[in-house]
Amino acid sequence: MTYTAAVSGATGYAGGEVLRLLCGHPDIEITTVAAHSSAGRRLGELQPHLHALADRTVVDTTAENLAGHDVVFLALPHGQSAAVAAALPEGTVVVDAGADHRLTSASAWEKFYGTEHAGTWPYGLPELVTDPRGGKQREALRGATRIAVPGCYPTGSLLALAPALAAGLVAPQDLVVVSASGTSGAGKAAKPHLLGAETMGGMSPYGVGGGHRHTPEIEQGLAAAGGQDVTLSFTPTLAPMPRGILTTATAVLRLGIDDARVREVYDAAYGDEPFVHVLPEGQWPTTKSVQASNHVALQLAVDHHAGRLVVSTVLDNLTKGTAGAAVQSLNLALGLPETTGLTGQGIAP
Amino acid sequence: MTYTAAVSGATGYAGGEVLRLLCGHPDIEITTVAAHSSAGRRLGELQPHLHALADRTVVDTTAENLAGHDVVFLALPHGQSAAVAAALPEGTVVVDAGADHRLTSASAWEKFYGTEHAGTWPYGLPELVTDPRGGKQREALRGATRIAVPGCYPTGSLLALAPALAAGLVAPQDLVVVSASGTSGAGKAAKPHLLGAETMGGMSPYGVGGGHRHTPEIEQGLAAAGGQDVTLSFTPTLAPMPRGILTTATAVLRLGIDDARVREVYDAAYGDEPFVHVLPEGQWPTTKSVQASNHVALQLAVDHHAGRLVVSTVLDNLTKGTAGAAVQSLNLALGLPETTGLTGQGIAP
Amino acid sequence: MTYTAAVSGATGYAGGEVLRLLCGHPDIEITTVAAHSSAGRRLGELQPHLHALADRTVVDTTAENLAGHDVVFLALPHGQSAAVAAALPEGTVVVDAGADHRLTSASAWEKFYGTEHAGTWPYGLPELVTDPRGGKQREALRGATRIAVPGCYPTGSLLALAPALAAGLVAPQDLVVVSASGTSGAGKAAKPHLLGAETMGGMSPYGVGGGHRHTPEIEQGLAAAGGQDVTLSFTPTLAPMPRGILTTATAVLRLGIDDARVREVYDAAYGDEPFVHVLPEGQWPTTKSVQASNHVALQLAVDHHAGRLVVSTVLDNLTKGTAGAAVQSLNLALGLPETTGLTGQGIAP
Amino acid sequence: MTYTAAVSGATGYAGGEVLRLLCGHPDIEITTVAAHSSAGRRLGELQPHLHALADRTVVDTTAENLAGHDVVFLALPHGQSAAVAAALPEGTVVVDAGADHRLTSASAWEKFYGTEHAGTWPYGLPELVTDPRGGKQREALRGATRIAVPGCYPTGSLLALAPALAAGLVAPQDLVVVSASGTSGAGKAAKPHLLGAETMGGMSPYGVGGGHRHTPEIEQGLAAAGGQDVTLSFTPTLAPMPRGILTTATAVLRLGIDDARVREVYDAAYGDEPFVHVLPEGQWPTTKSVQASNHVALQLAVDHHAGRLVVSTVLDNLTKGTAGAAVQSLNLALGLPETTGLTGQGIAP
Repeated sequence: MTYTAAVSGATGYAGGEVLRLLCGHPDIEITTVAAHSSAGRRLGELQPHLHALADRTVVDTTAENLAGHDVVFLALPHGQSAAVAAALPEGTVVVDAGADHRLTSASAWEKFYGTEHAGTWPYGLPELVTDPRGGKQREALRGATRIAVPGCYPTGSLLALAPALAAGLVAPQDLVVVSASGTSGAGKAAKPHLLGAETMGGMSPYGVGGGHRHTPEIEQGLAAAGGQDVTLSFTPTLAPMPRGILTTATAVLRLGIDDARVREVYDAAYGDEPFVHVLPEGQWPTTKSVQASNHVALQLAVDHHAGRLVVSTVLDNLTKGTAGAAVQSLNLALGLPETTGLTGQGIAP
Repeated sequence: MTYTAAVSGATGYAGGEVLRLLCGHPDIEITTVAAHSSAGRRLGELQPHLHALADRTVVDTTAENLAGHDVVFLALPHGQSAAVAAALPEGTVVVDAGADHRLTSASAWEKFYGTEHAGTWPYGLPELVTDPRGGKQREALRGATRIAVPGCYPTGSLLALAPALAAGLVAPQDLVVVSASGTSGAGKAAKPHLLGAETMGGMSPYGVGGGHRHTPEIEQGLAAAGGQDVTLSFTPTLAPMPRGILTTATAVLRLGIDDARVREVYDAAYGDEPFVHVLPEGQWPTTKSVQASNHVALQLAVDHHAGRLVVSTVLDNLTKGTAGAAVQSLNLALGLPETTGLTGQGIAP
Repeated sequence: MTYTAAVSGATGYAGGEVLRLLCGHPDIEITTVAAHSSAGRRLGELQPHLHALADRTVVDTTAENLAGHDVVFLALPHGQSAAVAAALPEGTVVVDAGADHRLTSASAWEKFYGTEHAGTWPYGLPELVTDPRGGKQREALRGATRIAVPGCYPTGSLLALAPALAAGLVAPQDLVVVSASGTSGAGKAAKPHLLGAETMGGMSPYGVGGGHRHTPEIEQGLAAAGGQDVTLSFTPTLAPMPRGILTTATAVLRLGIDDARVREVYDAAYGDEPFVHVLPEGQWPTTKSVQASNHVALQLAVDHHAGRLVVSTVLDNLTKGTAGAAVQSLNLALGLPETTGLTGQGIAP
Repeated sequence: MTYTAAVSGATGYAGGEVLRLLCGHPDIEITTVAAHSSAGRRLGELQPHLHALADRTVVDTTAENLAGHDVVFLALPHGQSAAVAAALPEGTVVVDAGADHRLTSASAWEKFYGTEHAGTWPYGLPELVTDPRGGKQREALRGATRIAVPGCYPTGSLLALAPALAAGLVAPQDLVVVSASGTSGAGKAAKPHLLGAETMGGMSPYGVGGGHRHTPEIEQGLAAAGGQDVTLSFTPTLAPMPRGILTTATAVLRLGIDDARVREVYDAAYGDEPFVHVLPEGQWPTTKSVQASNHVALQLAVDHHAGRLVVSTVLDNLTKGTAGAAVQSLNLALGLPETTGLTGQGIAP
């Protein structure tokens, strides 16, 4: 069976990556390509790398245009998904790449996003350890008809720390995460500080001091994994690369935890996962090893001097960080093999 | 039917890209991964982006290890292919990503490479216009058991100028080509001038003045297309990007040739090609639109003031410029659909 | 004596580079920092690399604010310089980094820029060979009170080819130039195709086929050098680097010209120049060797097979390509040593 | 008075940057340019950006060649400085850009470097707060004849955290620092993982878990500032840029410390410093704002939710991180104004 799909926000980075992956998905047919401001234009002009779709015409993001599909992808600005989703039948699988339906706490939503909370949908990170007994998020996605795609930073942070918290290897207080993201994470809207001449060859932090909207999303997932509240210091930085996120996540080790125990926990958490790879000791991950793929590479180190566990993860913010997670979750929702359409390797060098 | 394949030079950039593409090829099974200096090591350590092959062990590039496969890919230093190929049965399809079997002229080979000529194999550029009647190279590849993969620069130059020469739009003398290549084109051997700190943020020419080994290869193909000798000034430059080639190719227009006639010729040459795209007027190609794909984008301009046709092509030096051409040609050799395993879109942004 | 200076367009790339150089100029005092849209803001917020000027307040670009200085730099959009300059006293040295006063031909101006021609000022490229007897542009700048700063592409092309044309080494017809520029050449106005995610890792041509506005400017200078009209095919390309221009310039060699003769001509033209360096044979220039400096490095090759001279030049589009040329010309205008304030080396790696 | 200087390691990145800065230093004459493996070669071939020194000949790094100068810069591999310095008169000012004389603890040296400790020289970071009363390192450098140039990572970390520790704003335990460095920090020796094709477009961590040699150097300085031992988790990462270090440094806030108090402490520490700038609230630093300059930009945030102070610093690893610190310290040693030869602005864009 082939499922029909509409992709809104098709001219942005997230929408473009969804389309790229769907071009290689054997069970999905891209029926509608929608974007508000570019309606009527040829997609080849706006996303010239999507050769298979070059002659498609972009249509406006209206309820009419999105109706009648088996699957609808939403890659819209914050706060717009709820209204669009409300107009779609319950049986349509709606995959929201935006933030609107990720948070369970209405107050956290309102504090960080400033609008009314739209509700909570199943969180599209199948590999996430979701409780101290080692349960995985995967189960919540099977047969789902509404999916909230995780934020790109949260994916790297959650995969890094959830197993350690679930297994009680580390304290839930005083988590510290520093992430470096490629500039596509900031979107395709033209702003002077995102120009190539500004970003090439330089790095800068932003949203420091707890202000980044992904902080409550990371805390929410880690709190579930560990079964108790967590406290996180999260600093995002902008790196001079188009794609990729490198996350350095650290937590205070509990007494008596040694290297072997930590590795055992992570091997147990991810040993059977098709997309999350604990690297052999001594090999550090690089974002290019997962570029344009749905893979995540992870390495860990126990720093006995500092008393901290350090976990490094790499992923592609547009693929596993957005569109890959969307497709992977969709596969679960539709009852397809989870890796369908996601078998690409990383692009390197 | 599934064909077994051995890939030599598997730890370099060309070999790595062949492996990446073969991971997505439904009719090929990667049986053997060979490289001389890294024999015995885990592939995941050397090519960490090839997650599907991470646990493979690299074997030495010996006749024994390469024997017994349906297909053998050679990504070896210049001058080593002939001996290896000689040890393989005639029925084995041998695809040589090196230069050894590209040139038809033994004297040109000896002048530019300095060793004895190993012979000439069918040239693996199916879309190449090969004569003034508009024949294509494709036919020479069907059922072939020996294939010479084109050089990366020649692919961009030949696709740019062959249609114009075959159709008599331009003069065969005084062709001028300037190409910019990503640094992976220089290979994975560590040299100081190829360090990231040296290459990021800067450009430089090299092999200027006719000395580059790809010059006779380009001239050979263009002479065939036009049916007469050509003279080429070719300047390669090194650009601060990992992958990609942008070629600016110009030729002296014959009298009376206008824009419409030029576009007509190129549309006729490439309108039915799955991988070569003449862009709509006004849209200029970018190397990122074809990154990690087998696609080529082409645009042209008639400069009446200067009396020259200018053709720009973009391709990925490792994909269409090497490994994609290898797989595409192999498909023809095996009688498979030509696009098998090559359906990926470009990776952008 | 210290001269007072006003810099308009101070928040853009050209204006910022003028300010950077003036910070190191012992005879200039930056009195006024002007920009239209950012008037009232702190310069440190807009040009954070200019630490010495961080606390300056940007003023509006009005006649009042620019009045009363010894020197006024204009870094304004095309077509705005004439009106501003008209309001300044004749004795004020006005240095126009824009295009308005570069072309001698009113019809060429109108064809390429579409507005009324504002007149012609002395062209700020002191090292330019301006006639077949080997005269230099330097003399026209001594004591000047109006200076037209060259375009960045023309500087690289003119320095590459003028000596050969002046000495009759090459034919004036069928010059072919391909240049690669860093993205700062496109300015600081935010446009989607100039975003870091779009430009990093990719190259693209633009303005192909003779349409680039720098074409008549290059032809004008080369025609003067050779004493006869020239015909140029010029193709600019955008390279993934913040700064720098690599120019590959080729021309048809006249019969009987050999390598030694060519080198002799270039050594004679540039051997005494403080900023233009003919590299030793075998060493190719890199844009990073001149980054953020007023230097130009040049290498040449005689391609006897193709019958062409190939000259490569590298410069920094913002320094020697704009602000450095402005300051160097200003030094001549004020009777200061030509290298004053321009003694910085290139920034590498 | 002009001082004569010899620079060893002149063909590497640190030595090249020392030479670049000395070219602009009015009181220093570069008398000798030394390097072991390149002795006899023309410097212009090895450091083509140093136009003023292009015709210098590199001499071998022998005691004879380094003798007889007022100042000797050492940019040698670890463990080689002591022997070279021992052969120089006590009155010669020896500035060691290597690690040999930075650590006060012989056991820390032996643990991290594996050789015998060579002794401790005055640490060349004038702005460093060195004790809880707010003393600065500057005083120890006046008139010194032996100077240990700080490591590039320690400079960013020490300037970030020393004021807070000295003022008792934060706890000395559980400091967490994550730094991103440009690839020139890894030196000019060619290694495959540092190739442009590998490093462009990607990030990776290394030396995670406390193993990096800069960890004890950072702890040593912070312990002095706070007057008690500190514990640091330090993670260095490699960023796709030639130069620059962005440091994210965090520490546990003591109770009752608010934003105003933190800013007051940092303003007091750096308000009079010529090279360290606390940015206005709301402006985050970028490495490009300090590129190729001796400046450091710093911003801070109090994260009340996480209970941590977060301080971001940016510097150029080769300038303030190495050669600029060397020259600044030398100025103090010679009794020259501290900023002599270091007045360049950052290079941006």
